[in-house]
Formats: sequence, structure tokens, C-alpha cells
Amino acid sequence: MDYRKFKYIIVGSGFFGSVMAERIANDLQESVLVIEKRNHIGGNCYSKRDPETGIEYHAYGTHIFHTSDDKVWNYINRFTEFNSYRHQVLSTYQNKVYQLPINLETINSFYDVNLKPFEVDDFLAKEIAKSNLSGEPDNFEDKAISMMGRPLYEAFFRGYTLKQWNKDPKEMPASILTRLPFRKNYNESYYDSKWQGIPLNGYTHIFKQLLRNPRIELKLNLDFFEIKDLISPDTTLIYSGPLDRYYEYKYGKLEWRSLRFEHEIKEVEDYQGTSVMNYPEQDIPFTRIHEARHLHPERSYHPEKSLIICEYSLMDNGENPYYPINDLRNQRLVKLYRAEADKEEKLIISGRLGDYKYYDMDATIARALEVYETQIKSKHAANWLQRVE
Amino acid sequence: MDYRKFKYIIVGSGFFGSVMAERIANDLQESVLVIEKRNHIGGNCYSKRDPETGIEYHAYGTHIFHTSDDKVWNYINRFTEFNSYRHQVLSTYQNKVYQLPINLETINSFYDVNLKPFEVDDFLAKEIAKSNLSGEPDNFEDKAISMMGRPLYEAFFRGYTLKQWNKDPKEMPASILTRLPFRKNYNESYYDSKWQGIPLNGYTHIFKQLLRNPRIELKLNLDFFEIKDLISPDTTLIYSGPLDRYYEYKYGKLEWRSLRFEHEIKEVEDYQGTSVMNYPEQDIPFTRIHEARHLHPERSYHPEKSLIICEYSLMDNGENPYYPINDLRNQRLVKLYRAEADKEEKLIISGRLGDYKYYDMDATIARALEVYETQIKSKHAANWLQRVE
Repeated sequence: MDYRKFKYIIVGSGFFGSVMAERIANDLQESVLVIEKRNHIGGNCYSKRDPETGIEYHAYGTHIFHTSDDKVWNYINRFTEFNSYRHQVLSTYQNKVYQLPINLETINSFYDVNLKPFEVDDFLAKEIAKSNLSGEPDNFEDKAISMMGRPLYEAFFRGYTLKQWNKDPKEMPASILTRLPFRKNYNESYYDSKWQGIPLNGYTHIFKQLLRNPRIELKLNLDFFEIKDLISPDTTLIYSGPLDRYYEYKYGKLEWRSLRFEHEIKEVEDYQGTSVMNYPEQDIPFTRIHEARHLHPERSYHPEKSLIICEYSLMDNGENPYYPINDLRNQRLVKLYRAEADKEEKLIISGRLGDYKYYDMDATIARALEVYETQIKSKHAANWLQRVE
Repeated sequence: MDYRKFKYIIVGSGFFGSVMAERIANDLQESVLVIEKRNHIGGNCYSKRDPETGIEYHAYGTHIFHTSDDKVWNYINRFTEFNSYRHQVLSTYQNKVYQLPINLETINSFYDVNLKPFEVDDFLAKEIAKSNLSGEPDNFEDKAISMMGRPLYEAFFRGYTLKQWNKDPKEMPASILTRLPFRKNYNESYYDSKWQGIPLNGYTHIFKQLLRNPRIELKLNLDFFEIKDLISPDTTLIYSGPLDRYYEYKYGKLEWRSLRFEHEIKEVEDYQGTSVMNYPEQDIPFTRIHEARHLHPERSYHPEKSLIICEYSLMDNGENPYYPINDLRNQRLVKLYRAEADKEEKLIISGRLGDYKYYDMDATIARALEVYETQIKSKHAANWLQRVE
């Protein structure tokens, strides 16, 4: 293939890359090449059918689309409809099921009381007093205990955090906990967003729709770095892979938390009654169990089989980076890499991996639309004017 | 006022009457008079601000807009936006809070067990067996017990039904219970509809929008029957009041269940943590407590006061009919009245009160749109053609 012929090349077909491709093909009406290392489109949003049960699952963990951004919602609804799924998270602790985020139901159920909303503060103040904390809490554990008391913290946060980050919460910064959702009412909805749902035809369908314009050429199973040198200096390169990889880790490697999934078919229609069940206890090796059938309550699935997926946390960069680790070292590296990237006129590095930011899906789409408008479309118009003059 | 000048007169400004008025004014571009007996528009959907707390409440009980009808959703969104409120109903029984409709959380919490979805049937079968029912259940009580066992029935249904209908469930037909939602999973959402929410600016705002065309003239505080004889025989009359009243109860009175509300201001920000709390116990006189602030979580309300509204059931026709009582006698009367109405060419009787049907808001709107298309617009077009010919 002659990679030199493309004015635009996009690396990665997740939401960032696919939205950029869609805009360039449909709005700019230019042709564009999308290069994807994996054997499928959609990045970590990729969904597929389990062959045995027919149940569609999210191959890289349960993804709930939610947004309060009108622009993003209107944009994505041009490519898919959504079902009316509303996310909730439950947590099994010592053989009892509780609601997360912690709300009045969780507290009443955990303590076997029947507090009213206006009685919660006094009740928790007594629990917090029993915890014998002294001074300003300067780590995750003390901060959490100062907010909810030791028993709730130990049930729902200590083991879970340990499993998730492989680090003692006493050694983690208190700052992580400032935005912990903690409700004194019975609001059990996980997200507060204006809109929420699962794409009616699954996530992969959205990416097919985004990439369907014949001006978009798609190459799967191709590692960009194998052909990097074959690209013309006139090509605008839109790279949504890991920022450090682009510069061959010259300042050091960025760290990511990652996940590992184990699939199992249960011979029942419904195994756990909900899409995501947390297991916060330290001696249970996985962090969550996903049961994908609950994401599409509007579908008729297998009546006697259900797919469950156990999620394990991995603390290595692995092949599938998920979550940036926003500590000082990594933030320092990001600055060094970004300074390099900003110097290159024909290069855009962005998306979750490129920006090293924990974007939700809607934030990724918003970012792509913004980058397209400010860095692609405006330049294209300027060049065009120049040519005309 | 000269009532003879109007080609269209609408009685009632609830959803049926207001949508008809909107269509006639905006689509047909004809002028129309809307007559409303009460001192406000909106029928039982009317919402207003409580003067002391500023909290907007639904004067005739909590109304949640929900629909799966694309046509209705698109129509109503031309007049209002909706917030992202999702309805849930909780029930306080013996000083403990449970979720309704009964789901796996309710069952586990009630029995203090941790059943998985696939274990529910066996568990309940044992409870049902203990109830010593014999033969096919032929009344509400036996039917309910045959579905869930005696303890759940007695906790959540027996007292509540008694209070609601003022009748022993043993003397009520089994048929009422065939569609009881009963979930073996953790789905806690009250409605399964595709769309749901509370109008961002409240219900009354929708009616103002529906009725804002200057071709619509509105007369509040006017009892239609005072001016009935002043209407021209050429006027098309669209009547959304009680069907039997129109015919002066000549075949007998239709029965309605009604509600009574008692307001109270509590000196706390949040009294019960949710918008609707059921009280199923027989010795508590009210059936539910509404706390209106929870309907608009997006608003900032009074931080130290909350409006609560206790709902009592009334078994009389009263001044505010709510729910038709669909027994054989009433069904027979409806048929007699409808036969009369169908004979009159210039008369349309419909809406919840006119059809004597328990329409939800979306069904009322769908009905109005349908009646407009089939009985107003089509005739108007036919007449117009006739005149042209």
C-alpha cells in the first residue's frame, strides 16, 4: 500500500479515532486511512456476541454511555439509538447485597437501622468518633474513615481499593477521595447524567456506522510503528495510541492500570440479577462480576444460559492499557512528551491513551469534535483560502 | 361572550383538551375556545410552587412522565424539556424500607437471605406451600398469596389494598393481579418505558406552551353546563369531562376512586430521601407520602424546609375523580353513554374522564393526537373540499 497518498492518517479506531475519521470523511469530504493494531474496531468499547449464548458483551469491561453534553448526545444519536438501561452497581459483602454508591439504603441495611435523611450526619459522626482518628487525614484510609467511619470503609473500600491498586490505602493520597459520592437519600442511580443507555445494536455497530463512508479506508491488524517511516511529511497524522510509545519511551514509560477478564457460562437464565456486582472483600481475588445479559433488557437471550465475566485488576502496562495513574511521576512525563508533540505541526496526539487522561466515552467524543474543529477543519479552510489566493 | 362564534369548543384543559386545542390552533389554524371549570389549567397534572418553601409540587399527586411511544415523545418535547429523574417507589413496613415493585432486593431484605435469581422460584414455592391454599384462587388475596406466599402479600399488599379500595381483598376479583410486576432480579426501576422524566419547568409550563397560540381563547372558572345551551349546533364540541355528567347521569352515576392530600412543612432539607414512600400497614391512615423536592434533583430548593404531602384514598365520586372503577356495572354504564355520544356528529367525548379509562399521560396525548387526526382534521379537509367543489 502507498501510505504516502493519504492526506490524513488516523492511528486507532476507538471513539477518538473513529469520530475524527467520520468528521474528515463526511464533513471535510476528504479521504482518510485508519490504522488499527487489533483485529477489530472500537478500541476498548468493542462489543461482540458470545458464540455459545448469543449474549452481546463488552470485551474490555462494561461500558455505560452517559452524558450531559447536548452536543455529544445529538452527535452520537446520528449513528445509533440507545435503550433505556440505567446503571446501578451492587456490592456483595459477607454474603449480603448492598447498593453503591453508598446511600441511605446502604447505611440502613448495613447497620440494620431505619435512619431518615436528616439523621445520617449525627449517626455517622458517632461512628467516625469511635474510629479514634487524630489530626488532618493525610492518606486515603484515614480520609475515608473521617467521612464514613471505619465499618463502612472496611466493608466497601479497603479490600476493593487494595485489589484494584495493589497498594495499601494507607499509602495512597487522601486527594483521591474528595469526590466520593456519598448520598443521604435513596437515590440509587449510579450516574447523574442527563442521558444514559446502551446502544441498541451494541457498541461495535456505532463504530461501523462512524467508519462507513467509502472515503474511509480501514487497515486492521496493522501496527502503526511498522509503517511509520512510510508516511509522507505532508500527511496530517492523528495518533490516538499511548503517548510515550510514540516517542519510543525516550523519557520513560507511563504507567497504566489494566484489567483481565475470565469468562464463564452459567447454566441459568440469570446468575446475579444485575449487570455489575462488586466483590470488595480482600480474600476474593476478582473485583467484580459482569453479567452482560442485563445490559440489554429489551432483548430475548438464551433462557437457560448466562455469560458471566470476572474482572481482575492488573498493575502493569500490559497490552491493554485502561486507566492512567495520575501520580506526580507520570504527570511529569506527560508534560515532557506533550512538549515534543506540540512542536510538530502535522501531528495530533489525543484520545485517552494519547492525552493520558481518564476520559469517559462522552468526553472522548467531545474531545474529538473539538480537535476536529480547531485543528483540522480550521487549518483545512485556511489552506484552501491560501490556495485560492 | 358570544359562544356561538366558535367553530370549536373544548371542555377541560388537561392533556386531552390542551393537545386538541394546540392542534386545532397550530395545525388546523382555526380559533378555539377552551372552557375550564377549575381556576387553573392542566387538569390533574397541574403543578405549582409551594409558597413557603418554593418547592414545585403536583397538586393532584406525583406525576411521572414516561412513554415508549416515539410519536408522543417527539410531540411533547416540542413544548418542554425533561430532567433525568427516574422513578422508584419505596415502601416502609414495620419501620424498615423496602423497594417496590417487589424484586430480589425486597425478597432478600424481607427474609434476611441472599438468594440468587435462579433460587427465587424454589424459595417462594415453599412459602406458597405453607399458605395452605386449596383450589384455583378466585379472589385478589388468594391469587396474590399463590404468587408470592402469605408474608410478602400481608406486608405489601393486604393493608395497602384495603386502604386504597376500602374493600377486603378477599372480596376483590383475582383478575386485578394478573399483571403484578414481580422481579427475580435487582431491577429497581419503577417504569420500563423508553423515556422518562419530569418537565424541567414543571407540568403547568407545558400547558401554558400548549395553549399559547392567540387563536386559543381560555375561560377559567367556567362550568360548561352553565353555558351548554348557548352553543351553536354548528360548533364542534370536544368534551373531556366525566362521560356520565354530560348526559346528566341519566343511566346512573359512574364510580371513581379519588384522593385527598394533606400538606405539611418539615423543618429539614430532606425528610424521607425519596419522592414517594408507600405505607402499606393498615393502621397507618394514609397510603403514601410524597416529598416533591426529589422530583427536581437539578434544582436548588430550600436548605432547611421540605414539603411533604400525605395521600389518603377516597371511595367517592367527589369533586376530583381520579381512577375509574372497572367493574361490570360501570362498564355497562359506559357502553350506554358511549352509544349516545357516538350518535352525535358534532360531539367528541374523550380523555380519561370522557372515556372512563385509566390513561397515563402519554396515552392521553396519543389519544388526543389520534382523535385530532381522525375526527377533526380529516373532517375539516372533507368540508373544505366540499366548499371548493
